[in-house]
Amino acid sequence: MTTRIGILTGGGDCPGLNAVIRGVVKAAVGRGWEVIGIEDGFDGFLHHHKCRPLGLEEVRGILPRGGTILGTSNRGNPFSFPIMREGKVELVDVSEEVRSRIDQLGLTALVVVGGDGSLKIAQEMMRRGVPIVGVPKTIDNDLLETDVTFGYNTALETATDALDKLHSTAESHHRVMVLEVMGRYAGWIALESGIAGGADVILIPEIPYDIDKVRESIIARCKRGRRFSVVVVAEGAYPSGGNRVVLEAAGGKSVVERLGGVGEALSRELGGVLEMDIRVTVLGHLQRGGSPSTFDRCIGSRFGVKAVELIESQSFGQMVCLKGRHITSVPIEDAVRSLNLIDPSGEMVRHAEALGIMLGR
Amino acid sequence: MTTRIGILTGGGDCPGLNAVIRGVVKAAVGRGWEVIGIEDGFDGFLHHHKCRPLGLEEVRGILPRGGTILGTSNRGNPFSFPIMREGKVELVDVSEEVRSRIDQLGLTALVVVGGDGSLKIAQEMMRRGVPIVGVPKTIDNDLLETDVTFGYNTALETATDALDKLHSTAESHHRVMVLEVMGRYAGWIALESGIAGGADVILIPEIPYDIDKVRESIIARCKRGRRFSVVVVAEGAYPSGGNRVVLEAAGGKSVVERLGGVGEALSRELGGVLEMDIRVTVLGHLQRGGSPSTFDRCIGSRFGVKAVELIESQSFGQMVCLKGRHITSVPIEDAVRSLNLIDPSGEMVRHAEALGIMLGR
Amino acid sequence: MTTRIGILTGGGDCPGLNAVIRGVVKAAVGRGWEVIGIEDGFDGFLHHHKCRPLGLEEVRGILPRGGTILGTSNRGNPFSFPIMREGKVELVDVSEEVRSRIDQLGLTALVVVGGDGSLKIAQEMMRRGVPIVGVPKTIDNDLLETDVTFGYNTALETATDALDKLHSTAESHHRVMVLEVMGRYAGWIALESGIAGGADVILIPEIPYDIDKVRESIIARCKRGRRFSVVVVAEGAYPSGGNRVVLEAAGGKSVVERLGGVGEALSRELGGVLEMDIRVTVLGHLQRGGSPSTFDRCIGSRFGVKAVELIESQSFGQMVCLKGRHITSVPIEDAVRSLNLIDPSGEMVRHAEALGIMLGR
Amino acid sequence: MTTRIGILTGGGDCPGLNAVIRGVVKAAVGRGWEVIGIEDGFDGFLHHHKCRPLGLEEVRGILPRGGTILGTSNRGNPFSFPIMREGKVELVDVSEEVRSRIDQLGLTALVVVGGDGSLKIAQEMMRRGVPIVGVPKTIDNDLLETDVTFGYNTALETATDALDKLHSTAESHHRVMVLEVMGRYAGWIALESGIAGGADVILIPEIPYDIDKVRESIIARCKRGRRFSVVVVAEGAYPSGGNRVVLEAAGGKSVVERLGGVGEALSRELGGVLEMDIRVTVLGHLQRGGSPSTFDRCIGSRFGVKAVELIESQSFGQMVCLKGRHITSVPIEDAVRSLNLIDPSGEMVRHAEALGIMLGR
Repeated sequence: MTTRIGILTGGGDCPGLNAVIRGVVKAAVGRGWEVIGIEDGFDGFLHHHKCRPLGLEEVRGILPRGGTILGTSNRGNPFSFPIMREGKVELVDVSEEVRSRIDQLGLTALVVVGGDGSLKIAQEMMRRGVPIVGVPKTIDNDLLETDVTFGYNTALETATDALDKLHSTAESHHRVMVLEVMGRYAGWIALESGIAGGADVILIPEIPYDIDKVRESIIARCKRGRRFSVVVVAEGAYPSGGNRVVLEAAGGKSVVERLGGVGEALSRELGGVLEMDIRVTVLGHLQRGGSPSTFDRCIGSRFGVKAVELIESQSFGQMVCLKGRHITSVPIEDAVRSLNLIDPSGEMVRHAEALGIMLGR
Repeated sequence: MTTRIGILTGGGDCPGLNAVIRGVVKAAVGRGWEVIGIEDGFDGFLHHHKCRPLGLEEVRGILPRGGTILGTSNRGNPFSFPIMREGKVELVDVSEEVRSRIDQLGLTALVVVGGDGSLKIAQEMMRRGVPIVGVPKTIDNDLLETDVTFGYNTALETATDALDKLHSTAESHHRVMVLEVMGRYAGWIALESGIAGGADVILIPEIPYDIDKVRESIIARCKRGRRFSVVVVAEGAYPSGGNRVVLEAAGGKSVVERLGGVGEALSRELGGVLEMDIRVTVLGHLQRGGSPSTFDRCIGSRFGVKAVELIESQSFGQMVCLKGRHITSVPIEDAVRSLNLIDPSGEMVRHAEALGIMLGR
Repeated sequence: MTTRIGILTGGGDCPGLNAVIRGVVKAAVGRGWEVIGIEDGFDGFLHHHKCRPLGLEEVRGILPRGGTILGTSNRGNPFSFPIMREGKVELVDVSEEVRSRIDQLGLTALVVVGGDGSLKIAQEMMRRGVPIVGVPKTIDNDLLETDVTFGYNTALETATDALDKLHSTAESHHRVMVLEVMGRYAGWIALESGIAGGADVILIPEIPYDIDKVRESIIARCKRGRRFSVVVVAEGAYPSGGNRVVLEAAGGKSVVERLGGVGEALSRELGGVLEMDIRVTVLGHLQRGGSPSTFDRCIGSRFGVKAVELIESQSFGQMVCLKGRHITSVPIEDAVRSLNLIDPSGEMVRHAEALGIMLGR
Repeated sequence: MTTRIGILTGGGDCPGLNAVIRGVVKAAVGRGWEVIGIEDGFDGFLHHHKCRPLGLEEVRGILPRGGTILGTSNRGNPFSFPIMREGKVELVDVSEEVRSRIDQLGLTALVVVGGDGSLKIAQEMMRRGVPIVGVPKTIDNDLLETDVTFGYNTALETATDALDKLHSTAESHHRVMVLEVMGRYAGWIALESGIAGGADVILIPEIPYDIDKVRESIIARCKRGRRFSVVVVAEGAYPSGGNRVVLEAAGGKSVVERLGGVGEALSRELGGVLEMDIRVTVLGHLQRGGSPSTFDRCIGSRFGVKAVELIESQSFGQMVCLKGRHITSVPIEDAVRSLNLIDPSGEMVRHAEALGIMLGR
């Protein structure tokens, strides 16, 4: 009887997901296995139960394409799933249902491709006896135990390209151009794209910013004859002594809300005093889209192959990861223990400051 | 005595301005002329009087670069220039000063590179006896008497690239993705990038939209199994029967204001009824930046050469323009007579609708 | 009885073909028509007779993709088609077969998307009573009666991007970098990408080059302290007094042959005397590939719609074309009368020389 | 007395060199040091002795630009430097001169940015008592002791983009498209871009290829209905039992020579038997040029800062390197011990084969 495995993608979409799916299918088919694609993450799995077999034909030509052919969802935690009972919504543990579905489908194992949230669910499922292998996915690069994962590199290219574009306007109009990028808890996108894009100021959640010092640094630049500044701010950045919670909300799910977020707030704080024009651009969803970069296609494809190798060796509960030049694995629980944040006194921050970048302090 | 000409760039920056400047300098130097670069448009000319000679060395390597090495400004109309008198601001006609400055600099002629606003000023200056040649510049493609001008093509590439990126998220998450692009009076960027980016709905200022019909078209797509939609909306678009004036304000100068603009408004109007998630992205200044496209570099360079040819033939009051394959010229006054708007019953709108795109009506 | 039309793509592939196919299908389906896709051009039509119905599902997601989903071929002229008879190949007129096939398929009309070659065949077919509408396709921009067509703009972007890349190496190593681009008879790609890419020398088929003058101009640059030069050469360029025929061969079909083509020849001619290192890059097929630019997607889509409109109005024998801002049509025979070549004493050449570019004379 | 350091870039140019130069200058100026830029590598240093001070003004705006503002050279080994004596060239050890020049300039230390060749020279210089810090630079990723270095990531993007472009032509014309990429000894570019670009066959120097098996795999694809194949070949790849030496020559310095290189040879070997059309594209210098990717700008900038930190701590003879997430350093001698080649039985090759890619064996 042939081995049959399942795969689902959860959480926000991310360039490279299709590379992972293709990698899993190619490696599995090469072993004579069958692959079942589960649509729209755990949410879809629980709601409309949509699944379909994935063969070589289904993954043809998807490598350069962004998003995920399986669909995904930010909703659908099987351990607190919203169910209507007597006219009101209750959060119910339906994980048993997930397990029975997996048994019905005759799945030897399930590959869960997702970020912190999906992997925590996967970890919990493991405990309930579902054989799972995890593949890390995060735009924000905030996952522990892997040097980096797919999606992040493509997001960086988009952010740096935006900074290159804003530079010409900043310089031509002698303005302060503010770019708000993703990163609710970890400022990696802001920091790396800011270094690469030649930003003058970078504000990240790990370093609450002192608005007066930010202002002074911009004025100091003017006095040195640099009549413009480019500021990158992570959506989760907040002023020292500022109310984090409020900004949590501002950095919330809907872009429409987020538009009233940190970029705009910062521009108001600066605008009060500076005589220069200030313009804000919120990069938003552009960071999630587009064809994956070479790095993300390559890592994604190899993560997919590695996930199949882990299933073959019965290494369940493991998450694929990248360490230096090697693709290996770690227990999922180690990866979801906490978030991979920037060390305010660490190497990369020190380098950024040595490059003359103002980090809000 | 050698011929000496001046050049200034006015209004919002735009990819290809440096190509024009370089073209003017190369063609002028080739004739043994001198070129004086006037910094920060009419505003800079009147305020800090900053000028500098431009030779081959000054324009080296600027062809692929966005923005303008001369700087620009949206302010500074010499016919109503803000002056402080007895503690309050008065709008004064200082055009005489501009003319005397031009005489002092010994300029045979002035090349004004700008959009509707700057060209109107140029036209008025002409009447006062300043020998001027105009070069059209507009991201929005809303200038009459030229098939198209530089900057627009690059802006289109940026908008289409954004649509390609949003498509993967729209499809993966089954969402409505709204992209707000530039175009306060003319919807060219929205219409052409929407056609190129495979948008499902395109809303332009020339066709007030019926929100109910927009909603129905999105729902109809869902019923056909297309559980996502991509909507492009020009910043100047407004609902039929809606108060245009309000949206004028929303589409106003500061991005921070504009963030509360048409994209967000549209998302609220749709969100009330649709069950799908909606996300808004405001492309904003990204449309002005970046390295110019081949087309814009080529047209910009040739416009610069043509401007010098016009000065050589004493064809003052003329604006360089593109007609089919030819670069020629027209009287500035013809170009600023009114705006180049999309004909709601014209060819391009008909083609868009034939492609199955919903145009809000 | 429903109208049924056919569509085929002929000649070398080109970015935007899928946009045309999609445009034809969307506009035809919108009229309740059926569309039959003929695979691999006339060659496929005559050989394996592969056809398939094209509906909205078949054209989904193809807009941003290069190439043609129908396949294409440089072979297969029905008026001199290679047939094996008694062990040797004869060229036979099989056009009658094409016509009968079209009747069998019940096609009201055939849309032929192709360049000079395919359109000449189409024109001849018309004469034999096959109702045909043409859509112009050429990377080289060498077709008459249309300002430009799809594919060319994308090829220009690829060539200009290559020039930007070669510039950094040229300048860092003080080298002469030669880029060979497409254009066997017409030098449009070389001229426009050269202007946009800041080339120092541009050699096109329309202006036989004087190698001594080319050499002198490079040496003169060195003496002015510019220790590098960037040269763009069209594959069909040849030295004045040089044997054109030989270069025809060099510019022949197989890239392997073309590698020994004009770029290499030029480098040898220059290398003899110059003390600078010379490097040649042959852009080759990279110019045909990739996602179409906004312009090409837009024009391609609209050409497709226009082709359907022409069929609807029974305007057979017409070719879709672009004139200024308008999409209209002309008799196919006018378009294939001769080639659209660069006028050596024309406007664009004059502008290039005014920009300080050396054109080989 | 202020500390004064020197910096030179050697070997082939590479995206990210300017980021390193800028990083060194910013970090040094931040410490109140002076920086002297040495032009055109060791060759320039020995020939025209061109040096210039580098301050913040000199490095402004160079971060996004390819190449090196200092110029570079593949020539100029001070230990066997070509000198004319009595009409013939002798190779002389002039390293003493380099040292005295460094003393004259009052340099505390010299930062050498280069690949295997330049770093070997640096290492030898160290032995002669010149205080040197190395920064690794290689397009080919063939340096030991660093996970990766700048330039390689940008080259990968260029190669993958080329593969995306060739795919559409391969598929539309049912052809075999061969792409020859850099990599004379190490096949990293071919392998990683091939994985990312969905190549069907990848040939690298580390695995001599069996032409019969390559042919069979392409034919097998045809029989599976995939009537095209995309082949990536590293310039140093060679057939099993083939004469490596010959291919060394073919992979030699001048592109004109290399055009008759492995890509063409492979196409001849395949062409003999296959009935499909084959086309070769040689990517050549396009891989060296262009604006550096985010990764390369970021790593390059940080390497520059780290080099200054190494000088500050008197850690001479060390080379900056990347290990996992950290930027650290290793003795130069360890890095130039041998080359970083692909392990034919290693992880990445195994992953590629699991993805269904044919590796020539």
